[in-house]
Amino acid sequence: MKIIHIVFLFFFLSFTTSQASVNDFCVADLKAPDTPSGYQCKPLANITSDDFVFHGFVAGNTNNSFNAALTSAFVTEFPGLNGLGISAARLDIAENGSIPMHTHPGATELLIIVQGEITAGFLTPTSVYSKTLKPGDLMVFPQGMLHFQINTGKGKATAFLTFSSANPGAQLLDLLLFSNNLPSELVAQTTFLDLAQVQKLKARFGGRG
Amino acid sequence: MKIIHIVFLFFFLSFTTSQASVNDFCVADLKAPDTPSGYQCKPLANITSDDFVFHGFVAGNTNNSFNAALTSAFVTEFPGLNGLGISAARLDIAENGSIPMHTHPGATELLIIVQGEITAGFLTPTSVYSKTLKPGDLMVFPQGMLHFQINTGKGKATAFLTFSSANPGAQLLDLLLFSNNLPSELVAQTTFLDLAQVQKLKARFGGRG
Amino acid sequence: MKIIHIVFLFFFLSFTTSQASVNDFCVADLKAPDTPSGYQCKPLANITSDDFVFHGFVAGNTNNSFNAALTSAFVTEFPGLNGLGISAARLDIAENGSIPMHTHPGATELLIIVQGEITAGFLTPTSVYSKTLKPGDLMVFPQGMLHFQINTGKGKATAFLTFSSANPGAQLLDLLLFSNNLPSELVAQTTFLDLAQVQKLKARFGGRG
Amino acid sequence: MKIIHIVFLFFFLSFTTSQASVNDFCVADLKAPDTPSGYQCKPLANITSDDFVFHGFVAGNTNNSFNAALTSAFVTEFPGLNGLGISAARLDIAENGSIPMHTHPGATELLIIVQGEITAGFLTPTSVYSKTLKPGDLMVFPQGMLHFQINTGKGKATAFLTFSSANPGAQLLDLLLFSNNLPSELVAQTTFLDLAQVQKLKARFGGRG
Amino acid sequence: MKIIHIVFLFFFLSFTTSQASVNDFCVADLKAPDTPSGYQCKPLANITSDDFVFHGFVAGNTNNSFNAALTSAFVTEFPGLNGLGISAARLDIAENGSIPMHTHPGATELLIIVQGEITAGFLTPTSVYSKTLKPGDLMVFPQGMLHFQINTGKGKATAFLTFSSANPGAQLLDLLLFSNNLPSELVAQTTFLDLAQVQKLKARFGGRG
Amino acid sequence: MKIIHIVFLFFFLSFTTSQASVNDFCVADLKAPDTPSGYQCKPLANITSDDFVFHGFVAGNTNNSFNAALTSAFVTEFPGLNGLGISAARLDIAENGSIPMHTHPGATELLIIVQGEITAGFLTPTSVYSKTLKPGDLMVFPQGMLHFQINTGKGKATAFLTFSSANPGAQLLDLLLFSNNLPSELVAQTTFLDLAQVQKLKARFGGRG
Repeated sequence: MKIIHIVFLFFFLSFTTSQASVNDFCVADLKAPDTPSGYQCKPLANITSDDFVFHGFVAGNTNNSFNAALTSAFVTEFPGLNGLGISAARLDIAENGSIPMHTHPGATELLIIVQGEITAGFLTPTSVYSKTLKPGDLMVFPQGMLHFQINTGKGKATAFLTFSSANPGAQLLDLLLFSNNLPSELVAQTTFLDLAQVQKLKARFGGRG
Repeated sequence: MKIIHIVFLFFFLSFTTSQASVNDFCVADLKAPDTPSGYQCKPLANITSDDFVFHGFVAGNTNNSFNAALTSAFVTEFPGLNGLGISAARLDIAENGSIPMHTHPGATELLIIVQGEITAGFLTPTSVYSKTLKPGDLMVFPQGMLHFQINTGKGKATAFLTFSSANPGAQLLDLLLFSNNLPSELVAQTTFLDLAQVQKLKARFGGRG
Repeated sequence: MKIIHIVFLFFFLSFTTSQASVNDFCVADLKAPDTPSGYQCKPLANITSDDFVFHGFVAGNTNNSFNAALTSAFVTEFPGLNGLGISAARLDIAENGSIPMHTHPGATELLIIVQGEITAGFLTPTSVYSKTLKPGDLMVFPQGMLHFQINTGKGKATAFLTFSSANPGAQLLDLLLFSNNLPSELVAQTTFLDLAQVQKLKARFGGRG
Repeated sequence: MKIIHIVFLFFFLSFTTSQASVNDFCVADLKAPDTPSGYQCKPLANITSDDFVFHGFVAGNTNNSFNAALTSAFVTEFPGLNGLGISAARLDIAENGSIPMHTHPGATELLIIVQGEITAGFLTPTSVYSKTLKPGDLMVFPQGMLHFQINTGKGKATAFLTFSSANPGAQLLDLLLFSNNLPSELVAQTTFLDLAQVQKLKARFGGRG
Repeated sequence: MKIIHIVFLFFFLSFTTSQASVNDFCVADLKAPDTPSGYQCKPLANITSDDFVFHGFVAGNTNNSFNAALTSAFVTEFPGLNGLGISAARLDIAENGSIPMHTHPGATELLIIVQGEITAGFLTPTSVYSKTLKPGDLMVFPQGMLHFQINTGKGKATAFLTFSSANPGAQLLDLLLFSNNLPSELVAQTTFLDLAQVQKLKARFGGRG
Repeated sequence: MKIIHIVFLFFFLSFTTSQASVNDFCVADLKAPDTPSGYQCKPLANITSDDFVFHGFVAGNTNNSFNAALTSAFVTEFPGLNGLGISAARLDIAENGSIPMHTHPGATELLIIVQGEITAGFLTPTSVYSKTLKPGDLMVFPQGMLHFQINTGKGKATAFLTFSSANPGAQLLDLLLFSNNLPSELVAQTTFLDLAQVQKLKARFGGRG
């Protein structure tokens, strides 16, 4: 008897709270439009445990010119992160490889090295903060800072990267400067690079102009 | 003459500002999808004074096993709160009744007692902050903290609860632990409760496993 | 034996977490400087249950020209609210009394009426949203909106106000316009009030100029 | 050979990042519903340079009763600002003109004067902060504060206004109080203005009641 | 000649920006008081690369009753994280070990498993979201949710945890309920546990009452 | 008589609210430590109108290698902006001058051109958004994006820049890459620039290594 009453009250309570708890999380409906705060939420009824799990954080193929691979679990790959202000990526760098200069606009990056040796750093107008990292080390790259990671050890290096945004972006400096159709003269003028240098890298990274 | 000009300018001003003022508030369209920042806004033209008023904050029926009733005015019941970071609930606890241990993920609760006597508190790993409250007292339960409220006086107790979120949720510990289908052994292992205790409460709160 | 180990681990865990939990709340040290996010935190060791409780939410004295009284529990009166984004006030309005036009810059107000009858509303350039409220009703005044409350019933009216800020401020229009030393001509020019009206209210509210 | 590999990796990287970078900006789709965080984003494929540019920040027509003109570039006129927390307006005030008392709920205003002389100020219950400004001066009006701007020089005055919100709104005090249908007696009671003054301004600003 | 001019201008630019860039990061001065937004910043002149690096993310000692170890890099251990909204912990669980039910008030947790097998989940009033995870899997626990992690494989399991806060706290349910001096009857009443069960666990976790 | 009562009540009201209104603004005490949310507030009693006004937004000296001058009014120059999320700068570019590639980590920039012609743009990994601007035009550069401004007209160009942060910083790409002591080989490796190019620009911008 008592139990029925309790369950009844709990149902009453959970009626109002189960709707309220829609906002306890908001799994992205990637087919719907984005908003400044993230994607629309999938209906609660359609959400399962699988929405909160991401598979495939395994070693990427580093058999390329960078000798590096980046596997990202951002909201577009892992919709359960929507609205939660966090995401991650796996970084594999073969010997002599590197992740060149880049920024994440508006997201801080926290690097956890698990194998090998990585020399990493970020740049400000007045200082460089850089360090050679070994397994057991963490390094933080504050939001929006230009930074790099190089495998300076022997053999492969692996790290996990986490970000203070579900959608941190990744803006590689060379892609920004040399993969587009801005006139080479304009790029030279606004970077102080030699025109020939700009043209050479435009050819390499697919830019025109 | 002058008046016409003024009105004209004011219409000009109000043309840009009346659209801008859509964001002065954003009454929820509960039939549309939710987003991480809340529901889509109802069109301004459809909004009336009634959207900003909630009726029914009256004494709930405490004739149940808890001897308690919670009436909530969260965004799902009161769409005018959408995006405004505030909501409320009315709490009625009959003699000997209580609201058992629960949390509101990410919302602070501020309790205003108006009748009777309530002993309330919240728990941290190293301290308990609890107090017996009488009409004229307020108590704050910082965001995400496990807390409880007990009627420790004679006769009924009534309080108003307000929250720093339009959708604070309410996670009752017993519902979390005992109303689901997690195996009883797993619940026992991760709570240090005796298996028999888990099974007993699973039976009471409708859980299986 | 086992227990010792457990307690040891828990102490280890609670060592890192008890420091971490400093941020679970941040009771204001009102003698220290304020910051844009609120006051500095009192040391955890000095915090007791009393920091989370406020006394004195009782009927204020309405024996004045307003026939009204406002008792506030903002961070400056209730330091436990610091950083938690919520506060409250108690409103008592005698028959024929009112709280005149005012704003709370950057805070939403949620009104819970508990006795009597209050007619309340807020103003936008294109609409008025107003309503006569009775016990059991709530009304929300979105952030920064000019609003008012009038006792339109018989006998006293009482309401609880809650705010989406620990420090909502309260800017009474008459105090803004008429209690200062701005030249009356300037006030008249920027309000379209008659100069005589401005001078009359300056005299009433203590302004000069 | 190498180049192909590089381009391939860059395509791989840019595949994940180009989607991630949807959130680097979120140009408003003004035909879609608004949300508490702003409008839905236009699809990335439809976005061009024109979405980030606004034309028409030219002198407005001040041939009206105010001798003033306000040209706004808020998100509703300049959709590229959506979600970015910034907007602007151009202010032209002819000799003897003024922008009367008003607030922007929840947005700070920063004024840059470029021509003429403007006396501006904002009001708190206990102080007035006002100043006569000349080209080369800036003045900040903290969020939600009642403020005004008057041309106190010879000839025209021009200023640029910027706001800490993509949609700051603009609530002119006279429009709030006198353009609606609130009973004149209620307005008089809640402002302490004489009833005749209220009725006179209601007539001027189009209000009834 | 030219270079001098350039350097001069750059110094001019960097004069304003190097001060501005104090806020590009804010390394905690842990000896100064905390605020709701974090600790005060160390002076820029005292900051070195070491402030952005944390050492010691190595396997903890799991030779305890939990068969588990948690090594945290929160702002109190890693001051460079201050104000950046991110932190991390390393989790080692020996065979049959587990991290019992706990919450992080206001922080989302993202788990990256690197060795072994972990069964993890979080609880809502109406559902359980749980999963058995293997290396290469990620799982997200939305903010404030009660959750657990169990080593359900053979041999040791290791995971990295990251949080959407520099100071996520960690509230272990058993410590909250059983390590304090709340009367056992009160704990029983507000949890529906049997009094004997409460007393047994109070004895185990060091609580009195 | 009545007036005295009113003034008394207003003093009562203004007693609680004048303290509350400390947070209506928070003028920076630049001699005190910074926090993640900004500087500590100056005491209210010391604040005057001058704290909200900045002088000196006049044409800078463009007689340098850039043919450009930037005059900033950030919180470090204009303490009244503290905590308000907005700031400004004046940009003067002589014929053929430019502001080279740079970012503002975490701040959006809104440009208002008032004289001459400026070609400006920002870069993403997949697109360039650029435009030639004339007086009356605005352009927005979303937060953290790499961008540039060039005088492409005849004679001087002037623009006002506003930012969605009181302290936006300004990270000039050449200063980041070439004014420090990172080994030239490392810079070359992480930018794909030729080593000779790196060395040439290091010599120009004062870097070593």
